[in-house]
Amino acid sequence: MAFSLRDIADRFGLTLQGDGAGLIEGVCSLQPGMPGRLSFLADPKQDGFLAQTVAGAVILAPDMADRCPAPALIADNPQLAYARVAALFLPPPPAAGVHPSAIIDPAAQVDEGAAVGPRVVIEAGVSVATGTVLSPGCVLEAGCKVGPDCRIGANAVLGRDVRLGARVRVEAGAVIGGRGFGLARDRDGWVEIPQLGGVRLEDDVEVGAGCTIDRGTIGDTLLERGVKLDDQVHIAHNCRIGALTVIAGCTGVAGSTQIGARCMIGGGVGIGDHLRIVDDVILTGATQVPSDITEPGVYSSTLKAMPAGDWRRRLALIRKLDRLEQRLRALEKPDNDKGDRA
Amino acid sequence: MAFSLRDIADRFGLTLQGDGAGLIEGVCSLQPGMPGRLSFLADPKQDGFLAQTVAGAVILAPDMADRCPAPALIADNPQLAYARVAALFLPPPPAAGVHPSAIIDPAAQVDEGAAVGPRVVIEAGVSVATGTVLSPGCVLEAGCKVGPDCRIGANAVLGRDVRLGARVRVEAGAVIGGRGFGLARDRDGWVEIPQLGGVRLEDDVEVGAGCTIDRGTIGDTLLERGVKLDDQVHIAHNCRIGALTVIAGCTGVAGSTQIGARCMIGGGVGIGDHLRIVDDVILTGATQVPSDITEPGVYSSTLKAMPAGDWRRRLALIRKLDRLEQRLRALEKPDNDKGDRA
Amino acid sequence: MAFSLRDIADRFGLTLQGDGAGLIEGVCSLQPGMPGRLSFLADPKQDGFLAQTVAGAVILAPDMADRCPAPALIADNPQLAYARVAALFLPPPPAAGVHPSAIIDPAAQVDEGAAVGPRVVIEAGVSVATGTVLSPGCVLEAGCKVGPDCRIGANAVLGRDVRLGARVRVEAGAVIGGRGFGLARDRDGWVEIPQLGGVRLEDDVEVGAGCTIDRGTIGDTLLERGVKLDDQVHIAHNCRIGALTVIAGCTGVAGSTQIGARCMIGGGVGIGDHLRIVDDVILTGATQVPSDITEPGVYSSTLKAMPAGDWRRRLALIRKLDRLEQRLRALEKPDNDKGDRA
Repeated sequence: MAFSLRDIADRFGLTLQGDGAGLIEGVCSLQPGMPGRLSFLADPKQDGFLAQTVAGAVILAPDMADRCPAPALIADNPQLAYARVAALFLPPPPAAGVHPSAIIDPAAQVDEGAAVGPRVVIEAGVSVATGTVLSPGCVLEAGCKVGPDCRIGANAVLGRDVRLGARVRVEAGAVIGGRGFGLARDRDGWVEIPQLGGVRLEDDVEVGAGCTIDRGTIGDTLLERGVKLDDQVHIAHNCRIGALTVIAGCTGVAGSTQIGARCMIGGGVGIGDHLRIVDDVILTGATQVPSDITEPGVYSSTLKAMPAGDWRRRLALIRKLDRLEQRLRALEKPDNDKGDRA
Repeated sequence: MAFSLRDIADRFGLTLQGDGAGLIEGVCSLQPGMPGRLSFLADPKQDGFLAQTVAGAVILAPDMADRCPAPALIADNPQLAYARVAALFLPPPPAAGVHPSAIIDPAAQVDEGAAVGPRVVIEAGVSVATGTVLSPGCVLEAGCKVGPDCRIGANAVLGRDVRLGARVRVEAGAVIGGRGFGLARDRDGWVEIPQLGGVRLEDDVEVGAGCTIDRGTIGDTLLERGVKLDDQVHIAHNCRIGALTVIAGCTGVAGSTQIGARCMIGGGVGIGDHLRIVDDVILTGATQVPSDITEPGVYSSTLKAMPAGDWRRRLALIRKLDRLEQRLRALEKPDNDKGDRA
Repeated sequence: MAFSLRDIADRFGLTLQGDGAGLIEGVCSLQPGMPGRLSFLADPKQDGFLAQTVAGAVILAPDMADRCPAPALIADNPQLAYARVAALFLPPPPAAGVHPSAIIDPAAQVDEGAAVGPRVVIEAGVSVATGTVLSPGCVLEAGCKVGPDCRIGANAVLGRDVRLGARVRVEAGAVIGGRGFGLARDRDGWVEIPQLGGVRLEDDVEVGAGCTIDRGTIGDTLLERGVKLDDQVHIAHNCRIGALTVIAGCTGVAGSTQIGARCMIGGGVGIGDHLRIVDDVILTGATQVPSDITEPGVYSSTLKAMPAGDWRRRLALIRKLDRLEQRLRALEKPDNDKGDRA
């Protein structure tokens, strides 16, 4: 796989500066760079690396172009342009066809333009559209509908009645459509509340490795168009995540919570059940959300590590904060005024 | 699948109010409801929806019965009654029998009443009792004992010597019996402490998708009768979780900790190693437990998101709490009294 | 499997005290112990159990030897000696050879000294060295290189171009080489930044069940020699974890962060992206690290559960800390001095 710089400029509508004949056969870091490979400069803090780079070419913003020692591709958003160009160097998807070891129920419909890998299991009532890749060992339980150009990772599981739009990506080991966690108390134990709904992932949703998204109790758990989940994210039953919201790794969202569109949720965040979070909310890493968020904005409850002894003293004081407040109040009261007693 | 309301009332010992001949073919939300489907009213906050519902029937408490616009099933605990009735509409379990692609060691015993799905692997010494369902791709390593009427999810793994009672449910992708995380320091590295115990899950235990439960070092890691785990819960080696305790998603319990019976543990909670938590403890979401809990009750250390700038100022003050306390003490001391100096 | 005590002493260079002829056929706890089995005493708090133990033999430190009621093996580091001896009782690894249900691409190289279990999938360009065990259902995607004496757990996934040194252990259900979570903003959504690097796990790395380690964007995500991960740890793209660092369960490390050597990181910890943590840092459980750590030492931000009502009052005060500080400042100001006003 190699492309001339001119070819790349043409394909992606970028302005070429310098020699367009050189072949680009991959990507590289800006520092030190590699001849024959393409890098990009998006972060102004990396300006200093530009002069020394030995990259074969650099994607950068117009105002940087005259400082580039190598041929350049000029883009208003160099990171976005890089994301598109670098996709040229991804390994090609597997060819369409069904591996002989795949087990496909006769009552399933697999488009002949889909690629079904070794050991895939497809149960009755499943449909798989063209261009979709099912990686080795993944399981599609009864009634799943998978749209076109999706990718399901190795050993991932789509439970019954999970429905995916177009270009949905589910990484290895993820489980979509596990049972929701709903329990009713009985005299001598717990009775599971049957989870009869499904999960719906709209177009362009991505689900990272090891994620779990539970089926709804009656209706569907829903991730709207373009939602992106990092690895090991947990979305409980009946949740609804708004379009284009992104959620970083190890975050958990409890049952029946609705998150708006275009939110950016950090890693290790915990969001309680039955909450509403409006559109355009940003949560910093490890923030805890036990109640509704009704205004867009950036929210946080992130702590910050200190030397352990110092923290222990702070923690002891946190645990005594009410006493501290009482002491403060005592000082504020005229009849406790020490000046009086002096 | 459709059942007359009278039939449902009879099966579950509920009091029928109104026409019992109508057929119920599924469940629905109270609002808006769906004709021919069954809903329930358990949460008093949903009272308002009752009058408008178009549900075919509603399960509700006696004091609500006269306000129900549809035929009703009257139950003291409507949620519990719903949980039982709704199970009628779960898809039937797969028929008993062994899929030809399953790989069963000749030295394993699989009851003919069990259902063994495609690509299941069963190693030597395993026994599987009647009524148990092994979903596609799950792996039962050497010596596992699985009791009657269990369900093991797709691509789940039971490590060697894991033992399950009756009606245990393990969801897709869970790993029971991974190695415990025990290390001894060597001059130039770490030596793994062999984990020679197993894992025991008693009757009616449920384990959610993506959970991990590690084997014990010498004895067994133990989840007692009726313990319920949501998704992505981690139970480390040598833990013992008491009967009927429920643990929500993304919670981790470190090694050798013992948790009592009937505890309710929120999501994202972290519990340290070698601790004891007594019976009937409730932990709110994201609470951290670095030491024993010796009295029943509700415990918390849950933070709450604020606008990020506001939180930053609070965090700076938390980090200066010792200085704040010193300033407070200074004010309290007679010889620092400003009145004196005035 | 049974070994005489003398045989064990000889194999591991331990000093035998008492009768060496007795056969040891397993391990046991010190309390109550089991005849014919071996225990150890490392924790001084367990001294009291020594006198009553019925263990067949005990590994202990020289200064304890004269208090041991059973034959003893004397070691300077009893825990380390136990870790080595107990490995005698681990089940033997499966014999070398390829299970007929494994699916191996003709363009892969599997050493004849490797053991390839049922349903394993090995894609083109993969190499597997001698002594390595591939457990049932694991998937090795195109181009993976697995060194000698590794163990890959059941249903684990090694993505394309993942490279493992010698004696690397990956537990069941782990996913190494998932896509990194990098996104570029587009006018109407997100464009994935292709992750073209791999993952490299050096010699003696261990990865627990359900872990996820993402591939690098351009270069490799790297875990150096002897790094040990507990279960459900997440390591994001481009991270570098230094030699011999251990990380407990449910911890997440965000993208491009570098952690030094010999760190000990507790469970449930969250570490932000693009950070540097130096060598020899210890983080207590659930600590949050949103910025660099530049000095070795123990760091913490671990909270501690309180009765929920008490905590609610503390939390309210935390949220009012700036007001508290203002009140304190008001008291400190001479013109607010109550003594003056008295």
